[in-house]
Amino acid sequence: MSAVGDVLAEIKRGAEEILLEGDLAQRLAAGRPLRVKAGFDPTAPDLHLGHTVLLNKLRQFQEHGHECIFLIGDFTGMIGDPTGKNVTRQPLTRDEVIENARTYEEQIFKILDPSKTLVMFNSSWMNAMGAADLIGLAARHTVARMLERDDFQKRYTSGQPISIHEFLYPLIQGYDSVAIRADVELGGTDQKFNLLVGRQLQESFGQPPQVVLTMPILEGLDGVQKMSKSLGNYIGINDPPDEMFGKLMSISDTLMWRYFELLSARTAKEIADLKQQAAQGANPRDIKFLLGVELVTRFHGAAAATRAQEQFIARFQRGALPEELETIELAAEDGAYPIANLLKDAGLVASTSEALRMIQQGAVRLDGERVEDAQRKIARGETHVVQVGKRRVARVSVN
Amino acid sequence: MSAVGDVLAEIKRGAEEILLEGDLAQRLAAGRPLRVKAGFDPTAPDLHLGHTVLLNKLRQFQEHGHECIFLIGDFTGMIGDPTGKNVTRQPLTRDEVIENARTYEEQIFKILDPSKTLVMFNSSWMNAMGAADLIGLAARHTVARMLERDDFQKRYTSGQPISIHEFLYPLIQGYDSVAIRADVELGGTDQKFNLLVGRQLQESFGQPPQVVLTMPILEGLDGVQKMSKSLGNYIGINDPPDEMFGKLMSISDTLMWRYFELLSARTAKEIADLKQQAAQGANPRDIKFLLGVELVTRFHGAAAATRAQEQFIARFQRGALPEELETIELAAEDGAYPIANLLKDAGLVASTSEALRMIQQGAVRLDGERVEDAQRKIARGETHVVQVGKRRVARVSVN
Repeated sequence: MSAVGDVLAEIKRGAEEILLEGDLAQRLAAGRPLRVKAGFDPTAPDLHLGHTVLLNKLRQFQEHGHECIFLIGDFTGMIGDPTGKNVTRQPLTRDEVIENARTYEEQIFKILDPSKTLVMFNSSWMNAMGAADLIGLAARHTVARMLERDDFQKRYTSGQPISIHEFLYPLIQGYDSVAIRADVELGGTDQKFNLLVGRQLQESFGQPPQVVLTMPILEGLDGVQKMSKSLGNYIGINDPPDEMFGKLMSISDTLMWRYFELLSARTAKEIADLKQQAAQGANPRDIKFLLGVELVTRFHGAAAATRAQEQFIARFQRGALPEELETIELAAEDGAYPIANLLKDAGLVASTSEALRMIQQGAVRLDGERVEDAQRKIARGETHVVQVGKRRVARVSVN
Repeated sequence: MSAVGDVLAEIKRGAEEILLEGDLAQRLAAGRPLRVKAGFDPTAPDLHLGHTVLLNKLRQFQEHGHECIFLIGDFTGMIGDPTGKNVTRQPLTRDEVIENARTYEEQIFKILDPSKTLVMFNSSWMNAMGAADLIGLAARHTVARMLERDDFQKRYTSGQPISIHEFLYPLIQGYDSVAIRADVELGGTDQKFNLLVGRQLQESFGQPPQVVLTMPILEGLDGVQKMSKSLGNYIGINDPPDEMFGKLMSISDTLMWRYFELLSARTAKEIADLKQQAAQGANPRDIKFLLGVELVTRFHGAAAATRAQEQFIARFQRGALPEELETIELAAEDGAYPIANLLKDAGLVASTSEALRMIQQGAVRLDGERVEDAQRKIARGETHVVQVGKRRVARVSVN
């Protein structure tokens, strides 16, 4: 395998789709630093591991000498959305956008290499664009092709209104690729259509069309729904070390491999080795420790990671935590599950009164942490390792 | 009938539709000068009577003290249309637009009152508009409503491409009404959708929505197809007096009443009187004379009109032209009809060789003018009074 072949294999890892792969191989072989674009919202960022899937892929490009363009789509954010007759959404001010960008930088440089990262704002070129130029842009794309986009198609056929400016946003996003002469653009699978508009516009402006690389959407702690703050199934990259480590230890073994593939900086070969160890009988918990330590190290440093692991082990009193836990799924009727009911329904106690007594005695732990509040509720989407005394333990997912 | 009622009746004459009539009555009653808008292309104008239908209606408003805004849509004309990948339509320069506007003025002030006419260019406000504002405009209209427009619907369902910027043009045209705070907008029936976008945008910008008044498309000399230069069935407002008069005399009696309704400055009552005279046996030719004299006077002055009528009568050697001519329809196979074949097929001569002989003898006339060229062809769409000698005469339409 050639050197380019190695790089390509690493970049393909975990990717959903690459268009066109041959083109990417050719650009990698050319030896010059590629301009790799990823676009982000201008809204106040509070990143979770789901967002880092793209960042990790950008980081891989950087490790091979390429330049990452972290593009903040502040132009539309500063316009606001006047959809609807009387409701004008409050646009972001310039100061808010700058503040949000600063917060982004604090978070993303835990993964990206600042010396190979350009943070750009699309307002730089879009504020200078006149209505006439935007019309020229709009002339390069057709209504029918725009309506082919899944969500537009669904809304159109079901009679849900689509405002005409929504047809302009993909064009602006695509034009950003023209403005920065992107070689590659990364995005989630849900962004594929917009990334392809970028290809088409570059071609129409006489540029070689960018390579489009889509990454899957990361599943949350439940292993089913996408990781999202509103679903409560997320690990924030600013979560404290213990919490991050505990949440990672709560995931299923299947999800652990998914997280290795999409979140770990380990090479594909190292991950394959770990899989082989597991197949040969290694304790999955020990492999999960490696993932937990790697990710906590990334966001909090090595010392914090070691301490988080030690405390996790201490809390669970070595030996109390079985090697692999069965996951119990509980359905929350009101969006959240009272802890006492959860203990009873998971079969860890015989009644809610026993549950309350055990909590009072300090015998109930969630992800190793003692539960103090007997009224605590577990939200839908959360998954925890729940322990009653030394012997009774289960992984519980609330759905 | 109140004074407002009289004005309203005059304005309704010939109009296809008024939205909303009650609103128009109210604005007329308010007594202030209304701002009456009509939009025109920025391309080199060579107006024919079809174009004057709108101008006549504008003139009626002026006669009642209102202000006409003759709006030249030069903004899009100066952009050009970059539709299609490699073809860029040559945009008009600023100088060309100004030159075209000058030519417009020469022609339109034969009908409009210059003291109550504002000639405006939509580039005045559109050149200053940024992409962000255009996006804001686009947010005020939906894709579904745009696709309801007849021509868009047809193209979309038949798979003909519609460029996205074509969705922006109606918005810009509508925004013009916002910019000039139009009270009323006039347009052909084919413009109804765009005029309604103006209403909607004004409302969304907090202005009272303009009254929309649509006028029918004028039929050409054949009385069937719309008057159009490319169909050859037109009377140009720069046609010389004799030609204009002759063409008007060639139209059918039915079409004559249509022209009275849409082109004459006579009041509705005067026209009703003429109709009554015709019903009581007046010679339709004499009534047609009135129309011919009125229109030639408008474009060339009274002296030229009188002369045109006298020469027309002289050419037809008083008495030779029957009071009402039957129209003979002939189908041209190649887009044009050789004169000799036309004479034969219309039954005016027995053979093409007789036709050629009669032409050589100077016995064949078209609208009273001697035919010199035996090879002359009559184009599809043209209608002429054709005469052979003193007795043989017919009105012939080539289709």
